[in-house]
Amino acid sequence: MNAFQKLVEHSNKVSNFRHLSSIVGWDQAAVMPSGGAEARSNAMAELEVHIHSLMTQPHLGDLFAQAEAQTLSASEQAVLREMKREWQQANLLPESLVHAQSLAGSKCEHAWRSQRGNNDWDGFEKNWAEVVKLSQEEAQIRAEATETTPYDAMLDIYEPGTTSAALDTLFADVKTWLPSLIDEAIEKQKHNNILLPSGHYPTDKQKALGLEVMKLLQFNFEHGRLDESVHPFCGGVSTDVRITTRYDENEFVQSLMGIVHETGHARYEQGLPQSLAGTPAGEARSMGIHEAQSLFFEMQLGRSEAFVDHLARLAANHFQGAEFEQENLSKIYTHVNKGFIRVDADELTYPAHVILRYEIERDLMNGAIKHTDVPELWNEKMKAYLGLSTEGNYKNGCLQDIHWTDGSFGYFPSYTLGAMYASQFMAAMKQTVDVDAAIRSGDLSPVFTWLADNIWSKGSLLTTDELVSKATGEVLNAKHFKAHLENRYLG
Amino acid sequence: MNAFQKLVEHSNKVSNFRHLSSIVGWDQAAVMPSGGAEARSNAMAELEVHIHSLMTQPHLGDLFAQAEAQTLSASEQAVLREMKREWQQANLLPESLVHAQSLAGSKCEHAWRSQRGNNDWDGFEKNWAEVVKLSQEEAQIRAEATETTPYDAMLDIYEPGTTSAALDTLFADVKTWLPSLIDEAIEKQKHNNILLPSGHYPTDKQKALGLEVMKLLQFNFEHGRLDESVHPFCGGVSTDVRITTRYDENEFVQSLMGIVHETGHARYEQGLPQSLAGTPAGEARSMGIHEAQSLFFEMQLGRSEAFVDHLARLAANHFQGAEFEQENLSKIYTHVNKGFIRVDADELTYPAHVILRYEIERDLMNGAIKHTDVPELWNEKMKAYLGLSTEGNYKNGCLQDIHWTDGSFGYFPSYTLGAMYASQFMAAMKQTVDVDAAIRSGDLSPVFTWLADNIWSKGSLLTTDELVSKATGEVLNAKHFKAHLENRYLG
Repeated sequence: MNAFQKLVEHSNKVSNFRHLSSIVGWDQAAVMPSGGAEARSNAMAELEVHIHSLMTQPHLGDLFAQAEAQTLSASEQAVLREMKREWQQANLLPESLVHAQSLAGSKCEHAWRSQRGNNDWDGFEKNWAEVVKLSQEEAQIRAEATETTPYDAMLDIYEPGTTSAALDTLFADVKTWLPSLIDEAIEKQKHNNILLPSGHYPTDKQKALGLEVMKLLQFNFEHGRLDESVHPFCGGVSTDVRITTRYDENEFVQSLMGIVHETGHARYEQGLPQSLAGTPAGEARSMGIHEAQSLFFEMQLGRSEAFVDHLARLAANHFQGAEFEQENLSKIYTHVNKGFIRVDADELTYPAHVILRYEIERDLMNGAIKHTDVPELWNEKMKAYLGLSTEGNYKNGCLQDIHWTDGSFGYFPSYTLGAMYASQFMAAMKQTVDVDAAIRSGDLSPVFTWLADNIWSKGSLLTTDELVSKATGEVLNAKHFKAHLENRYLG
Repeated sequence: MNAFQKLVEHSNKVSNFRHLSSIVGWDQAAVMPSGGAEARSNAMAELEVHIHSLMTQPHLGDLFAQAEAQTLSASEQAVLREMKREWQQANLLPESLVHAQSLAGSKCEHAWRSQRGNNDWDGFEKNWAEVVKLSQEEAQIRAEATETTPYDAMLDIYEPGTTSAALDTLFADVKTWLPSLIDEAIEKQKHNNILLPSGHYPTDKQKALGLEVMKLLQFNFEHGRLDESVHPFCGGVSTDVRITTRYDENEFVQSLMGIVHETGHARYEQGLPQSLAGTPAGEARSMGIHEAQSLFFEMQLGRSEAFVDHLARLAANHFQGAEFEQENLSKIYTHVNKGFIRVDADELTYPAHVILRYEIERDLMNGAIKHTDVPELWNEKMKAYLGLSTEGNYKNGCLQDIHWTDGSFGYFPSYTLGAMYASQFMAAMKQTVDVDAAIRSGDLSPVFTWLADNIWSKGSLLTTDELVSKATGEVLNAKHFKAHLENRYLG
């Protein structure tokens, strides 16, 4: 067995343990009774330690050196590139830093859960100082290893190859047209009459409807399930994808569209190249490309009139009421509103929330601002982008998200990158596929074939730029995103 | 950290990985979609290899030698004794034998799944020859290491400390009175009028009823769940016990009593000493003692008139019909019938099925008979014990069980040992607890307190003989079992 084969075998082993981690993680979120939590945490921590020890075995360095001298096919080269990337990431940080981050992150996140409700910035700030300091150390170490800026090194964890230079350009573009587009959309919708859900929508009926929508979206039930959890997510493994949702019996629109969103994530996972399973080249390309699938399903397909027509028709199997008519549902699903909270934001205002966070976390990691500057910067940017003041309103301002509490700096851009990729994929797809006709026919196969051929089946064989260029003929830009939003909200 | 402490730490680590194994095992049986099977098998096999490698680390031998020279408390001595027992078991067999057994067992079991239906003894025998041969090798190695007979060495896997000499005595006793007791019971019941379930019993109602019965039995839902699987079982971990059942919408008695049975297993697990969690001394004592809990719940409590009264009352919340009246339910649950199939057998004929298997597997492991002798021996013993011929009827004879197909010789006695222990526990309990009054009151706490104090909380701190003697004042004997059966079936 040569060095490359040994590395693949090692990767398969790691992948097997990650499989276990994913399944018990799903179990913890979806079905575990509360009393099982402590023993489960211990078991999961033991597993993570074991995976880390596998990833940092000393002999791997030699194997990578040997494998890089081998003659490999293009696909083998991609496998090697991704295995090496993972190995470098796992070996970059000293154990002492990882341990300190884990402690500081847990403490800060735990306290945040009550501090947020109490609007307690001062209490939060005391714990957060350590989290930020340690993340800056992490960013510094990563930056030195990869010869880039601290923030770009953090961004690289989630979006390999994406730089803040590229994001600055993309987001500068968005900022030139987004605020006015939001105002125009709100003005246009101001006389809309919307019938909001006000009935009782039993969980079992909502679930039955959700399953029908998943069928329409060709979710493969031989390789996955729908369950419930407090925070909806897509987990499991690519041969057994577990999506979850949360039902509110006073409401149905959020859970229903949540299922469409998670089904997008799930179909990406189900469509990954099984021939590369067990290696990182067989995994999803990046957080942004993953979010591009869920947002393609939710925003490009899900909120289109043609798709809402299906939702209305399927809903009629379980519910009756004027709120389920397509025209009303479409109005609900495209309603624009300037709000404080990112997770409640509509498609149009969402990028403003992301750009604000991006600019702050970039400057924080690069040392251009202090963590105590964040509330004031938040307030300034909210006023500039959405006309809302968050002065003294921390709970609906900089305390609203979980991401920064444990040091996950560099993640936020993925949301808006995903929305942009999704728009660009749709524009490219429409050059060869009559998407609207496919949706209306109820057989969306042509849509999914395009995604499977161009995105899902590629795994991480290509870099993100290569993937997007091959699929759409151009690198990522904001043009298609703008056109999509203008068409939907002003068209 | 001294040697004993190091061994406990090592045991905790192994226990964490077993936790993962139990949860993904439950997942596989209860919720995994079929397409996830292959990747799951690989992940689980990887985990088993890892657990085995932990159990066979070379430095453990020295640690055990050092720990045995330490001054330890009684409870620490028990922990050490059980850790050493596990370690010895794991290190006894050469890898090559374990691997050959795994292959031969999988092949034989897989083929058996269709051979049984086809009554294909000849086909089965070809694969089984290898399984038996390898099990005999295993038994020989175990026997040499523990200075006992081959069969006793196999029995020791499931029932530490139990010998075939003891079983021969117990079962000889049972054989003197069981056949006539069966005949008398059948004679007594011959004019019974039983209303069998014949309606439609929806799954959701059966489940709701099952949950109410679990509450009555004080199952702790903070530390466990009820789910569905093809083959009902009790899995998970002691802080998170997963029981399953299978619903048949044409029937309810089997699933309902199945839930009572599994709840017995579950309460044992939930009642194990958490202070010893992570070490084998905190685990269940043996298969027989485990089965004693499930059979205490099912046979001693569950089929008593007082308990069936509760079942009838709880059933009335969900179902109506004369089949649910206590008197009829009691007749169903104590109906005696001589049949071919062990898993369908009633309480009274069940021991005959077990003794038959015990005698055959004992002689097979000890080399007194050949595997090709089994069908004829089966036929002879079935005629002697239950008056039924299985000549040529392999599918309802020696091909009916899964246990022997993969070499699990030594397990069968646990079923009847469990039934005997359960009777003996009940007799002892009744000396201080008014069991019937407790059941009738609907608050069974005194019953569970006795079991918790005398059995559950002891884990594996005591040997089985010590445990039973302390709890009941005498070693295991068939007297209480006989009295219980005579009282129920002739009383």
